Amino acid sequence: MNEFEFIRRLRDQVRSRKTSSRLIEGIGDDATVISQVAGRDAVISTDLLVEGVDFYREATPPRLLGHKALAVSLSDIAAMGARPLWSLVSIGLPSGMWNQSFTDEFFGGYLALADQYRVTLAGGDVSETKDGIVIDSIVVGEVATGAAIARSGAHAGDQIYVTGTLGGAAAGLKLIEMGARLSQESGVRSKESGPRVLTSGLAHDDHKPSETAAIESLLLRQLCPSPRIGWGIVLGEERLASAMIDISDGLSSDLAHLCRESSVGALIQSDALPLDQNVVKLCGRRALDPLALALHGGEDFELLFTVRSEKVERLPKRVDGIETSRIGEITNESKVIRIAEKNHIWDLQPQGFQHFKGQV
Amino acid sequence: MNEFEFIRRLRDQVRSRKTSSRLIEGIGDDATVISQVAGRDAVISTDLLVEGVDFYREATPPRLLGHKALAVSLSDIAAMGARPLWSLVSIGLPSGMWNQSFTDEFFGGYLALADQYRVTLAGGDVSETKDGIVIDSIVVGEVATGAAIARSGAHAGDQIYVTGTLGGAAAGLKLIEMGARLSQESGVRSKESGPRVLTSGLAHDDHKPSETAAIESLLLRQLCPSPRIGWGIVLGEERLASAMIDISDGLSSDLAHLCRESSVGALIQSDALPLDQNVVKLCGRRALDPLALALHGGEDFELLFTVRSEKVERLPKRVDGIETSRIGEITNESKVIRIAEKNHIWDLQPQGFQHFKGQV
Repeated sequence: MNEFEFIRRLRDQVRSRKTSSRLIEGIGDDATVISQVAGRDAVISTDLLVEGVDFYREATPPRLLGHKALAVSLSDIAAMGARPLWSLVSIGLPSGMWNQSFTDEFFGGYLALADQYRVTLAGGDVSETKDGIVIDSIVVGEVATGAAIARSGAHAGDQIYVTGTLGGAAAGLKLIEMGARLSQESGVRSKESGPRVLTSGLAHDDHKPSETAAIESLLLRQLCPSPRIGWGIVLGEERLASAMIDISDGLSSDLAHLCRESSVGALIQSDALPLDQNVVKLCGRRALDPLALALHGGEDFELLFTVRSEKVERLPKRVDGIETSRIGEITNESKVIRIAEKNHIWDLQPQGFQHFKGQV
Repeated sequence: MNEFEFIRRLRDQVRSRKTSSRLIEGIGDDATVISQVAGRDAVISTDLLVEGVDFYREATPPRLLGHKALAVSLSDIAAMGARPLWSLVSIGLPSGMWNQSFTDEFFGGYLALADQYRVTLAGGDVSETKDGIVIDSIVVGEVATGAAIARSGAHAGDQIYVTGTLGGAAAGLKLIEMGARLSQESGVRSKESGPRVLTSGLAHDDHKPSETAAIESLLLRQLCPSPRIGWGIVLGEERLASAMIDISDGLSSDLAHLCRESSVGALIQSDALPLDQNVVKLCGRRALDPLALALHGGEDFELLFTVRSEKVERLPKRVDGIETSRIGEITNESKVIRIAEKNHIWDLQPQGFQHFKGQV
């Protein structure tokens, strides 16, 4: 299969799907063309995933890699309060990997997630690499004019919220580094059957069925993240959040970004943090610290946002089955982030990033 | 320098420039936000550049790499007849390269070209890599609604044109592979002084000053391409072209793409091809075949376009000092491309791509 055959196959796959009339040129031309409409802002995110840094090939089924490549960039769109609509993907693979088995799986996972949120793959680029997979994932979304939620809008007194639970993805990464793996079948996830997961590789380790289920869940938190699209859209459309960021580096780091951009500080309540219960379940038997992972672990792709006090009661209880937790309050001490734990208050230092990586 | 310091430095550099009021959020948030306007289509291109495949680090001064990274994606925007306005860049570098000397040079070259066309760097992503540089270059442009020039609009009888000259970039690549290098100073190009170039590395080779100048020019065709932005805008605004593509794979390949998408064929006149005169000058002494390089050599980033006969006389003579050449005519023999040379007509097979690479 050469690149032109590959692109034609991909175009055929995409053309068989429903698409918006606003997409004028999709896959197969020099660039993507989308008609603009007055009264809306375009929101564009890009996320670079590099093998060996952002994922391990041997631990990541191609189908889940395709899912994750799109999910991380969808999460950035959600973090702006926007609705995702179109995507582009630039993908570089070593020569031996341009075969149908890898690319069909990769784009199978990618397009299944795209379909779920009615996102249309509308362009991109392909290249060979000398070694190693590299993916740049681009998503284009929209909000009503002026409704995008920046990191810079938080004020003292705003309440701090986070969706879902924290620490699971980082625990999943630790388990992968300890040798845990999804079974081969988990790569062949279909809409009907849901993920089928078997852990393996945690040798000499006699664990109960409930532990196996917890390990599976944590591996999927890491390998198959769920972007909080529904929450992003609700917060953007209802103008409920004053500032927002997604948790990719870790709560302590991402809260520090938000506070720096807003020139504010924050006080977090330790016992309000929504710890991942699978991490709690495993923490006695493994070197997993639920609180440390919730504070500093990255890649949960939950939304961290602030809400003016008078708007708090308008927040929905849950969106798409995902609840939020109020974890603290914005203060006027610029860039000072503290955490209250029982009767003590500590300074919280950002520790969530482990390598050179960040949104430009 | 960590990633946050790097991003803040870059943001400060960009903020010191003039920017459009339509850019709502630029560098430093989860995504880029741009206000839309009715009556225009957004055009988005992405180009992945991989070290060892798309460029050789040892032959490419960082400043020219920054220039080329933006230029290739600007060329795609020009190929749609659009005006470039904003850009994003995802860049992955090995850990040792996140130093000011590399990134200042890279973004110096990138931003100098951006300034030339009033393009604003508006976002992106950074990551470490295990080894090797990878860059995904994204440009967002605009055309009037419906004015984007696709590859698919050519009809039998349309005249085929190409801007500038052909074969120079591929000759430059051959010279690099033979050992030719730009001098260090050429990386430190400033707007005022223009490129200063010295060749070296073509050992045991006693060449005249005029040959040195020709070699320099060809190296710059490869390392410092000039996207045909002015021509793209004119052809788009005046609706002069029925189909267009930029020459990245090579004339024979890119003409084949255009003909396939338009379900037409083409007849090219060999003696009408605008051969790069520096290649002609050197061809006696080196293994450079001007006609073969013009037909099959890639990366000239000239525009290849078709014009209805009745619009031919409306074509400008030159734009930004660049002329066009009429090189042939579209035929109704779908996908059959022929070349007339003296009294013979040959089938022209696409030969321009050497590795797995192409626009999605």
